[in-house]
Amino acid sequence: MSAAIDYNNAPSAVRAVFDDIKKTRNVPDVNNFWKYLARDPELLKRTWESVKEVMRPGALDPLTKEMLYVAVSVTNGCQYCIASHTAAARKAGMTEAMFGELMAVVGMANETNRLANGYRVPVDAAFEQ
Amino acid sequence: MSAAIDYNNAPSAVRAVFDDIKKTRNVPDVNNFWKYLARDPELLKRTWESVKEVMRPGALDPLTKEMLYVAVSVTNGCQYCIASHTAAARKAGMTEAMFGELMAVVGMANETNRLANGYRVPVDAAFEQ
Amino acid sequence: MSAAIDYNNAPSAVRAVFDDIKKTRNVPDVNNFWKYLARDPELLKRTWESVKEVMRPGALDPLTKEMLYVAVSVTNGCQYCIASHTAAARKAGMTEAMFGELMAVVGMANETNRLANGYRVPVDAAFEQ
Amino acid sequence: MSAAIDYNNAPSAVRAVFDDIKKTRNVPDVNNFWKYLARDPELLKRTWESVKEVMRPGALDPLTKEMLYVAVSVTNGCQYCIASHTAAARKAGMTEAMFGELMAVVGMANETNRLANGYRVPVDAAFEQ
Amino acid sequence: MSAAIDYNNAPSAVRAVFDDIKKTRNVPDVNNFWKYLARDPELLKRTWESVKEVMRPGALDPLTKEMLYVAVSVTNGCQYCIASHTAAARKAGMTEAMFGELMAVVGMANETNRLANGYRVPVDAAFEQ
Amino acid sequence: MSAAIDYNNAPSAVRAVFDDIKKTRNVPDVNNFWKYLARDPELLKRTWESVKEVMRPGALDPLTKEMLYVAVSVTNGCQYCIASHTAAARKAGMTEAMFGELMAVVGMANETNRLANGYRVPVDAAFEQ
Repeated sequence: MSAAIDYNNAPSAVRAVFDDIKKTRNVPDVNNFWKYLARDPELLKRTWESVKEVMRPGALDPLTKEMLYVAVSVTNGCQYCIASHTAAARKAGMTEAMFGELMAVVGMANETNRLANGYRVPVDAAFEQ
Repeated sequence: MSAAIDYNNAPSAVRAVFDDIKKTRNVPDVNNFWKYLARDPELLKRTWESVKEVMRPGALDPLTKEMLYVAVSVTNGCQYCIASHTAAARKAGMTEAMFGELMAVVGMANETNRLANGYRVPVDAAFEQ
Repeated sequence: MSAAIDYNNAPSAVRAVFDDIKKTRNVPDVNNFWKYLARDPELLKRTWESVKEVMRPGALDPLTKEMLYVAVSVTNGCQYCIASHTAAARKAGMTEAMFGELMAVVGMANETNRLANGYRVPVDAAFEQ
Repeated sequence: MSAAIDYNNAPSAVRAVFDDIKKTRNVPDVNNFWKYLARDPELLKRTWESVKEVMRPGALDPLTKEMLYVAVSVTNGCQYCIASHTAAARKAGMTEAMFGELMAVVGMANETNRLANGYRVPVDAAFEQ
Repeated sequence: MSAAIDYNNAPSAVRAVFDDIKKTRNVPDVNNFWKYLARDPELLKRTWESVKEVMRPGALDPLTKEMLYVAVSVTNGCQYCIASHTAAARKAGMTEAMFGELMAVVGMANETNRLANGYRVPVDAAFEQ
Repeated sequence: MSAAIDYNNAPSAVRAVFDDIKKTRNVPDVNNFWKYLARDPELLKRTWESVKEVMRPGALDPLTKEMLYVAVSVTNGCQYCIASHTAAARKAGMTEAMFGELMAVVGMANETNRLANGYRVPVDAAFEQ
């Protein structure tokens, strides 16, 4: 079993997804994530279509969405995802100052999440739905 | 040991922090999180001063910062923090459409973080620092 | 299926574990955790024997061990475990000042863990094994 | 302090555990996990005996158990555990198609876990115990 | 803003998804998760279609898939998801003995994940892809 | 953008923090964590001042605090933090026997956290605040 599927040895269903990724993102090749998921063409297709739908501009702009992606990936400690989505956020316009503030918020949120857990703080009535 | 400290039975060091929170946020009372942290006045003071510094407008606007806070809290499953920061994000202008997209990104990021883990995807050379 | 097993309707293998917990901890009844695990007597027995071995005084004293347990439980956001092990730590001598410092360390560690992740800090040669 | 303990320089209590692992699993040597845990012979022995008891065939077959182990390890992002238990699952009969579906379920569960958190969905009465 | 959308006050796009869930699962009503997601019809539709595709019988049977879902949800501590997928697993045939073994594996995996982290165990060459 | 800031090319605000770290810890150079955070001088300063305040001797001694830091870092799977705080704990007096017991408690807590989650154990009245 080869771990990654390259375009040249990919079945046509995989090539179709790769082509759509390259066209949508205007890149010469897909990154490793997609080459590994290509081992399961159905998973590849569903994941790409979901990511494409979720990450397109809407009520939130692409930069905000990429920074949210980084916030989750940093919280989970996913090294691949931190690297790829930090790169994507920079490409979408994240400056070094923005990155610093993003990290500061993510760090502080992870701290206060645990303070709320440890002090067993009950939800204020004003915050109930 | 009482679990929460109210303004009326708080020592002056705690009152000073409570006053600053109320003034900075323009609210009539502090929320439960601060009343519980007040059991340790030094922790209360340091946490508030850090939060105030981190959450003030800078390269990122307050709404973006609150949505990042929600993304982390949802990923960690901190119920208090989800409730309080979702309320704060709405107060800062988050619409229902923005909330839906925020949730969609957080959900997708948590999914693809695990796909990257499970397929053991190596970081692309292009993403290395 | 009843969710919890009380002493009176427990099979003898479960009663033997319950008796050992009560004797070891000098308590009149076991707490809910053990009553739920009793649905699987083998799991109950193995878990109790492991916990008893791990938590007995050794190179670390019981209070330190209970505070470590709280640190993990707060990080994971396990509400039952936070409640039960905070109570156990207080019983083992944790003062309110110790609790405040424990929370402060747990909060700070959760913050700097994410800063290290996000800044992708390489391990110093001096820290390699 | 050497980080790993090899059979040749292991005390007899460690050798006894190593021998039982090799015999139970029919392998010529133990994998690194056990060589590192051997630094604490009591921890080594208890962990191996628990793993042996938990992973033996019962109401669930060994392949299902290994896939559950992979699901947890991927969710936690434990690189060593992902590598070792994916190998064990393949040895127990996991095909590439099964692996793809395992990853798909793990990814989806991590996504919907966060959607349930973020939308603060109350448990249906029908799901209460 | 109402937190949950019931069939009677749902727009037609939401009703179509609800109808498909009820038909596919042969249930009289959808559970709360879908009623909350219905606040964002696009998210509802994409999530349901992904879940339906992922959870249908394939190389893995529905019971195995539901137990994997429980393993992830328990690891993440998502209370709603633990309740709903444990119920689904029981409906798919999970016995009390199976549940006990599932919990035992999930518990052990969460333990050994941390032992591998803490002892900083390097991946064996035999486990490399 | 260079990823790490060395003393020689650091602005004076960063040098002041580096000097305080070196003096407080009596070390010839700061470790990589601080060199990376130095990309955001305000984050560097606030993080160092918080860490200095939190980790100084108080109701808990420095060794206990470092072991708590390790417990959190191992639970989160932060490789950098595990390496740096294990080294710090050893410097503060952690013996190999203490390390073994620390790991045993962390492993057990991560296991029983999930058993409590999966069995959905309600908090005993005696543990309520």
